[in-house]
Amino acid sequence: MTPLIEALRTVLGADAVLEAAQIATRASSYWDPTPMRAAALVRPRSTAEVSTALRLCQERGQAVVTHGGLTGCVEGATTDETVLVLSLERMTRIEEIDPIGRTATVEAGVVLQRLQEAATEQGLLYPVDLGARGSCTIGGNVATNAGGINVIRHGMTRQRVLGLEAVLADGTIVSSMNRMLKNNAGYDLKQLFIGSEGTLGVVTRVVVRLEEAPISRNSALIALESFEAVTGMLKRVQRGLGAQLNAYEVMWGDHYRAVTVPGAHRAPLDRGHAFYVMLETEGAQPEADGAAFIGVMQQALEDGTVIDAVIAKSDSERAELWKIREDFTELYRTPPVFLYDVSLPIRDMQAYVTDVLARLGARWPKGFCQVMGHIGDGNLHLFVHPGVDDPTLHAQSDEDVYGALIPFGGSISAEHGIGTEKRGYLSISRSAEEIALMRTLKRSLDPKNLLNPAKVL
Amino acid sequence: MTPLIEALRTVLGADAVLEAAQIATRASSYWDPTPMRAAALVRPRSTAEVSTALRLCQERGQAVVTHGGLTGCVEGATTDETVLVLSLERMTRIEEIDPIGRTATVEAGVVLQRLQEAATEQGLLYPVDLGARGSCTIGGNVATNAGGINVIRHGMTRQRVLGLEAVLADGTIVSSMNRMLKNNAGYDLKQLFIGSEGTLGVVTRVVVRLEEAPISRNSALIALESFEAVTGMLKRVQRGLGAQLNAYEVMWGDHYRAVTVPGAHRAPLDRGHAFYVMLETEGAQPEADGAAFIGVMQQALEDGTVIDAVIAKSDSERAELWKIREDFTELYRTPPVFLYDVSLPIRDMQAYVTDVLARLGARWPKGFCQVMGHIGDGNLHLFVHPGVDDPTLHAQSDEDVYGALIPFGGSISAEHGIGTEKRGYLSISRSAEEIALMRTLKRSLDPKNLLNPAKVL
Repeated sequence: MTPLIEALRTVLGADAVLEAAQIATRASSYWDPTPMRAAALVRPRSTAEVSTALRLCQERGQAVVTHGGLTGCVEGATTDETVLVLSLERMTRIEEIDPIGRTATVEAGVVLQRLQEAATEQGLLYPVDLGARGSCTIGGNVATNAGGINVIRHGMTRQRVLGLEAVLADGTIVSSMNRMLKNNAGYDLKQLFIGSEGTLGVVTRVVVRLEEAPISRNSALIALESFEAVTGMLKRVQRGLGAQLNAYEVMWGDHYRAVTVPGAHRAPLDRGHAFYVMLETEGAQPEADGAAFIGVMQQALEDGTVIDAVIAKSDSERAELWKIREDFTELYRTPPVFLYDVSLPIRDMQAYVTDVLARLGARWPKGFCQVMGHIGDGNLHLFVHPGVDDPTLHAQSDEDVYGALIPFGGSISAEHGIGTEKRGYLSISRSAEEIALMRTLKRSLDPKNLLNPAKVL
Repeated sequence: MTPLIEALRTVLGADAVLEAAQIATRASSYWDPTPMRAAALVRPRSTAEVSTALRLCQERGQAVVTHGGLTGCVEGATTDETVLVLSLERMTRIEEIDPIGRTATVEAGVVLQRLQEAATEQGLLYPVDLGARGSCTIGGNVATNAGGINVIRHGMTRQRVLGLEAVLADGTIVSSMNRMLKNNAGYDLKQLFIGSEGTLGVVTRVVVRLEEAPISRNSALIALESFEAVTGMLKRVQRGLGAQLNAYEVMWGDHYRAVTVPGAHRAPLDRGHAFYVMLETEGAQPEADGAAFIGVMQQALEDGTVIDAVIAKSDSERAELWKIREDFTELYRTPPVFLYDVSLPIRDMQAYVTDVLARLGARWPKGFCQVMGHIGDGNLHLFVHPGVDDPTLHAQSDEDVYGALIPFGGSISAEHGIGTEKRGYLSISRSAEEIALMRTLKRSLDPKNLLNPAKVL
């Protein structure tokens, strides 16, 4: 390794390369406080420097793992002493915000929240939003096709990316910094890099689509007694409020009760209901939007679809409601906890959850499981607690959660990706032909298997 | 060829295979009435039959061109006596519409308008819409990533496709019939086939995302005197009416005057203005939406952004307004006409159009050029009339239209694709590295170069 480190130091500068001892002062990830392990960590300042680093690694057959905010959930950025870490922490420039074309051009290391704030300053909105907003980077969002709470209206990261620049394993820079909504000039190469978790190339710069900032916002937490009411209300809101709905986040009763135990969040609605939904609309006509929102709510309360509701009357009330949905602290009090991120057709969700809970209950009578989800997107998160402190139980939990998914044609990953954690289960959601084609792509773009090896495939 | 035809007849049935004489009774395309030429035309009834046909072609090194509705604009489906045509005209089943998940599952040969109507019957909307709706197929829409008039709100076809089934050159069926909004289980293989114009695989079945049908609709044709007013009004509408705007179609004055000459469409607005915009919103609250729409219009008329406006008061008035934008009959009265489909950042559009018109004017003093576009998408269409009846002038026209695009980083194809027509110009919009990566993909998926050869690349 030393000749490679020397070469990297020479071309990128001494401060661009950290060695094992310095690296060990960092945590492995947001979830794993053990010291980071790597042969070296390189901090390029530009796409050209990323290219140089990858070319040197290619020449020496050196494996490379790219690091963004390290808040991914599937061990997609894990390392050991044999790999070189390519950290984009010094590529944090917001290069341009175009208020007419409504685009932002940024380096991959920009933290999501910084982009959101920069857009807001221009009266615009970058609508991808998720709990890790303060740490995750745009490059990581692109590499994992991040989803989050506004997908129902604004799509996942893939739908926000207009252009990007990526560096291939051999150092080739593929610059596709398109700024237009429409561009059908040949294959849409950026799609290869979005969601491939750093295995096909390193994303260094990105052009994303912005929206006009909303002027009105209406938020409510509602209680319902059946899953039919949950999907019926979703349809009613989408019919009655058109495209304004940007979040419809469902918590099964046990989830709500877990995060509102005495001493945790105050429960704004009685804790005995079957389902709770956090919903939010954004629009441009404050008075009319508010009236329409209240109208839909009142009708649903009157006909019994919704049992109870609390509507946020201020930003702080809204923030309080969102904390109930976003703060998982209470769920992680008793380890181990196995977090899942599955998707399946909405109509099959209740049957699936019933089946999973029955399987887990039979396996671990003292265990429990919280369920919540971006339900309009077909996406559920499960927090499985076996009730026994033995992390080796993960595989058994996987068997139940993924096994129950098979009859519904569901996906083992809605938004978190595959990483290392789900690699062994890919065949549940993908056919042999699909996996073979993924391998063909990997071989074509990274024949030496140097980019984030042993992830995804 | 005969042994291959015999083999295809044996496995697919005699009526599945047409020979040259029968094929010649068909027109080459919507644009080209000359008889279609091909060694054979195969009409499979299922994905399995497509697979069988492609496997037989692969074994014999037979080139294959897939046909949908033949209304593409870039000669992407042209054939000669050496190729076998694979027509999906017998794969026209709408397999399922799921009103809860809001998805439709269809075979690739379904005509766009049929899917639109089937969705409407269920109170849903399939929002991809374009002039060729009555002839183009979903498979063709997917293969070309079709755009159209509602992209500003609902995205191009790529954004509507949740899943698809494709057959590779060697007959391998890659079935990725995902029905969920979110699925990050490995590489998103469907992206390879969307917009690759039949060169990487044959799309046989598709799952698309539907929306709730809109309840209110407001449409207007407005006149403006400057391009700044056009972009200013777009921003104002998007701020003031939020996500409701689903069409903002701009006609330069010459375009409007050409389609409203006496004897053609009645001109609902005076013919002397610089710009005309057809705009439309869709929402869910008829009274409030109508009031908001009128409010934005009135304000724009009062402060002079908009000079004149006509608001549709009935479906038939709306249809009349749309005809002005969609009916190109008048533009094709004097051949030759060269149609373009470029995209570039909105802020650069006026400078680009000024430059193109100056170049064309200098070249052909008796020529003229109409310009219109899906401007919110950064997409312009140009109709170039050299004023001299010589179709060989196309290349000179290309030089001006594409040459002027280079300084703005524009694309030679916003939504029509590359096909045969723009193949020689791909390097204007794509770097050498991008084209090399496209070739890598082509070689990996179709090593014998049998799928729609000599198209795109």
